[in-house]
Amino acid sequence: MKNGQPKYLEISREIISKIESSELMPGDKVPSENELIKTYRISNTTARKSLLEIENRGWVRRIKGKGTFVLNRTEDMHLTRILGSFGAMRESFDENLVKEGFTPRNIILEKTILENGISTNVNDKTYSIAGPVLKIHRLRYANDTLMKDEIRYVSMNICHKMHLTEFDRSFIKIYEDKYHLQLEEIQRTLNTTILYPNDANNYFENDIPMATFILNGAIIISDGRVVEIEHSYYRGDKYRFTIKTKPRLISESMATL
Amino acid sequence: MKNGQPKYLEISREIISKIESSELMPGDKVPSENELIKTYRISNTTARKSLLEIENRGWVRRIKGKGTFVLNRTEDMHLTRILGSFGAMRESFDENLVKEGFTPRNIILEKTILENGISTNVNDKTYSIAGPVLKIHRLRYANDTLMKDEIRYVSMNICHKMHLTEFDRSFIKIYEDKYHLQLEEIQRTLNTTILYPNDANNYFENDIPMATFILNGAIIISDGRVVEIEHSYYRGDKYRFTIKTKPRLISESMATL
Repeated sequence: MKNGQPKYLEISREIISKIESSELMPGDKVPSENELIKTYRISNTTARKSLLEIENRGWVRRIKGKGTFVLNRTEDMHLTRILGSFGAMRESFDENLVKEGFTPRNIILEKTILENGISTNVNDKTYSIAGPVLKIHRLRYANDTLMKDEIRYVSMNICHKMHLTEFDRSFIKIYEDKYHLQLEEIQRTLNTTILYPNDANNYFENDIPMATFILNGAIIISDGRVVEIEHSYYRGDKYRFTIKTKPRLISESMATL
Repeated sequence: MKNGQPKYLEISREIISKIESSELMPGDKVPSENELIKTYRISNTTARKSLLEIENRGWVRRIKGKGTFVLNRTEDMHLTRILGSFGAMRESFDENLVKEGFTPRNIILEKTILENGISTNVNDKTYSIAGPVLKIHRLRYANDTLMKDEIRYVSMNICHKMHLTEFDRSFIKIYEDKYHLQLEEIQRTLNTTILYPNDANNYFENDIPMATFILNGAIIISDGRVVEIEHSYYRGDKYRFTIKTKPRLISESMATL
């Protein structure tokens, strides 16, 4: 005890202050009991009480078998997503929402096999997938708010019977784990546009004009073929995209090329 | 000669088709004379004629002492910028425009020394710079179109006499070359919002509502201090941001950490 304050309270306050200062962000994992035991040289009981204290104060949620994650307590419930982090892309949309304390909900609007394939423009480059192509149009909600209107086109030449696959994981994980694909490059481009309440195909139910991110993406596998094309809308009032560049790391990794 | 076609025409067509397919993008460097000589085993004269042919057809612009660059011939003159590439950030806004064939123009709206320093929120994290801080508010045009409304705050404790520095290079180059700073991390976040024609402080002169990217950024140096905070608007009808992820490269560089 320091200043008469129990150790577990001291530790929980330290972690909470990291959440308050955004050193730990919504969806981030907080240290596990074992990590706390090692870092602070404390007992099992003290570690457990520290995490329980943070949970009881409403800062984190424990997910069985996964860990303890920082809840999203931003006033406008906005989501921050890291662009270009492959690790983050491996996580599914739903998994990320659950970690932040939201309830994900998905509506499949369309699931069609396009026999003739598809061609699209991402970043002025034309990407084509020969038929058959699986088109999946999903509306993705957090609690009751539509966050993302997502269309993906997946090569069924590369991913046989993709239409029979359960979409419970991220597509990247499906490509890697089920189809054993080696992903070569993921290309993503962000535009922005205004969606008006009465626009055709606007599912966001906004009463006033809303700025929207448009994401265009393509995933290329090691033999150069395109396995997936994505064309999605993210509501601009809830999303922000972020990127961290570590100049020193980059020059190091460039040097090894 | 192949099919009666002079070699230089064959080579120029090959390069032009790379530009047409966006393998070479606006602002990209096309191979130099020397590179053409090596690659195709041709004479000086043929190499020079190949580049001249591409230039005469209006695809590229030669910049003395720098190289030959692909011009931006997109119909709506949109700009594509790579997010998170440190190399790209080192290039100045103006240099990039010149390479694409635009005429950059800058208006400094405000240049003030804030004695009390500044604090701002980037990505839910608070970044502070102790005073004195140089505030520079610039309007950045391509030809006569306002592309970016940029505000930067620079620590004058770290960059002494920054107000006397000529802004002819990118700020990152100034930090590195003039102040010999080791940059530790560059944090950038993109939001989107609608700018209405009669919004206060809207300099874009748009007649109708326009979706806009808001960039918030912070640059941290090796001792953990913040050297720069940026808060800028990019016109959404002309900009797109792109990012390429190479899964295999990333896992390699992660392995070396």
